[in-house]
Amino acid sequence: MDSALLDKFDRLIIKKGYSNRSEAIRDLVRNNLVEEEWKTTSKETVGTVTIVYSHSVREITDTLTELQHHFHAEIISCMHVHLDAHNCLEVLAVKGRAGNIKKIADKFIVTRGVKHGKLVMTTTGKEL
Amino acid sequence: MDSALLDKFDRLIIKKGYSNRSEAIRDLVRNNLVEEEWKTTSKETVGTVTIVYSHSVREITDTLTELQHHFHAEIISCMHVHLDAHNCLEVLAVKGRAGNIKKIADKFIVTRGVKHGKLVMTTTGKEL
Amino acid sequence: MDSALLDKFDRLIIKKGYSNRSEAIRDLVRNNLVEEEWKTTSKETVGTVTIVYSHSVREITDTLTELQHHFHAEIISCMHVHLDAHNCLEVLAVKGRAGNIKKIADKFIVTRGVKHGKLVMTTTGKEL
Amino acid sequence: MDSALLDKFDRLIIKKGYSNRSEAIRDLVRNNLVEEEWKTTSKETVGTVTIVYSHSVREITDTLTELQHHFHAEIISCMHVHLDAHNCLEVLAVKGRAGNIKKIADKFIVTRGVKHGKLVMTTTGKEL
Repeated sequence: MDSALLDKFDRLIIKKGYSNRSEAIRDLVRNNLVEEEWKTTSKETVGTVTIVYSHSVREITDTLTELQHHFHAEIISCMHVHLDAHNCLEVLAVKGRAGNIKKIADKFIVTRGVKHGKLVMTTTGKEL
Repeated sequence: MDSALLDKFDRLIIKKGYSNRSEAIRDLVRNNLVEEEWKTTSKETVGTVTIVYSHSVREITDTLTELQHHFHAEIISCMHVHLDAHNCLEVLAVKGRAGNIKKIADKFIVTRGVKHGKLVMTTTGKEL
Repeated sequence: MDSALLDKFDRLIIKKGYSNRSEAIRDLVRNNLVEEEWKTTSKETVGTVTIVYSHSVREITDTLTELQHHFHAEIISCMHVHLDAHNCLEVLAVKGRAGNIKKIADKFIVTRGVKHGKLVMTTTGKEL
Repeated sequence: MDSALLDKFDRLIIKKGYSNRSEAIRDLVRNNLVEEEWKTTSKETVGTVTIVYSHSVREITDTLTELQHHFHAEIISCMHVHLDAHNCLEVLAVKGRAGNIKKIADKFIVTRGVKHGKLVMTTTGKEL
């Protein structure tokens, strides 16, 4: 890599807070590998589903609880935060095949009353 | 909207599992609003930070714990999952100004030993 | 949709420059459909490949020309812009199956000397 | 970087068609730098705007032509493709400050009759 490019990259990684260049490059490589991993739907991997909803919406807590039980084999953990009197933040940790995690995430995200939902496609960490 | 477009959209929302069209459109609108919200760095909002790391890496648990204490005002909750003998999944719920949440997320993501990290930019739910 | 949500959305669409709400919703729906379309690799669709490169890099113009000829059946048009004495911007319009367009885009993006490359996954427009 | 990670990355870059590992890492670094560049709205840079529309929609060609003339200082080149009897693909090359290019892209994307539009945030190539 030429020095002008490296200089620019070095300024960026200082801004981001990396302690050295190889650590930053390693992260770029790992991100790239995790992205590829999720293209294969049959690969066993890990995701987190973040949803924000109002518990005042009729039946929403029942629906979400039932869904969680239905997928108890894949949902390995759950965190619940009371944002205010009405709004809840819930994060589910999900383990399974990539294609399956995507489908489970959709089930939660499309539930009536869920205001916002996003899936993070991450990794078991085993091969990174 | 013409009927061919609606037909196509209706097939998609059935596939995704929506119970009706207006619920699906509401979600598209909300996603759009949340994306815009995060363009304003001074807006108070909510995010989740997902990281995967090996606790065997020297000093990593100390570093992550110190970081969490340093940002105790913004980190409102934390979930920890043991993925296997070495790998941990950790999700932090963070509340604060958009620009600040991004900076906090970077601190965790660039920590040496963190294999993969992603920020979900979500919402307080108040205006949705 | 409740009025607070609509108010917020209306402010956003004015900022973006939409003439009315239904036009903005139509665009959200179409975006959603185009994204789905690209998940099916066998679907006939359209993409554009944007690359920036320095023509001073040895053999790069030969390589890119050969590639374009090799995929002459799929590359339906090409635009070339001289950014400065060294840097070129080239945009290819590509038609074919989604999976194939992605592979062709990769061929150009990974060519030695191409500094930056991105694929836009768009549509034939037929069903929108 | 440990050898298991490198092995995995090497398999990926062969699949993508890179001739060697350092070329692949350079691309990851450049992508990272271009992404950062676009966070600074005042930075002079280059983008391409891809739109698909039906020229049968009343007044659309007039509107798009007027827009192009209005931004003639920033739109440095334009490619037009006839996809079928009705649908057109148009790609604009735009040069200017990042924030300004985003606004110009929005103007085209929100135009009534434009079915799909995307901005590619690329680079002048000068510092890469």
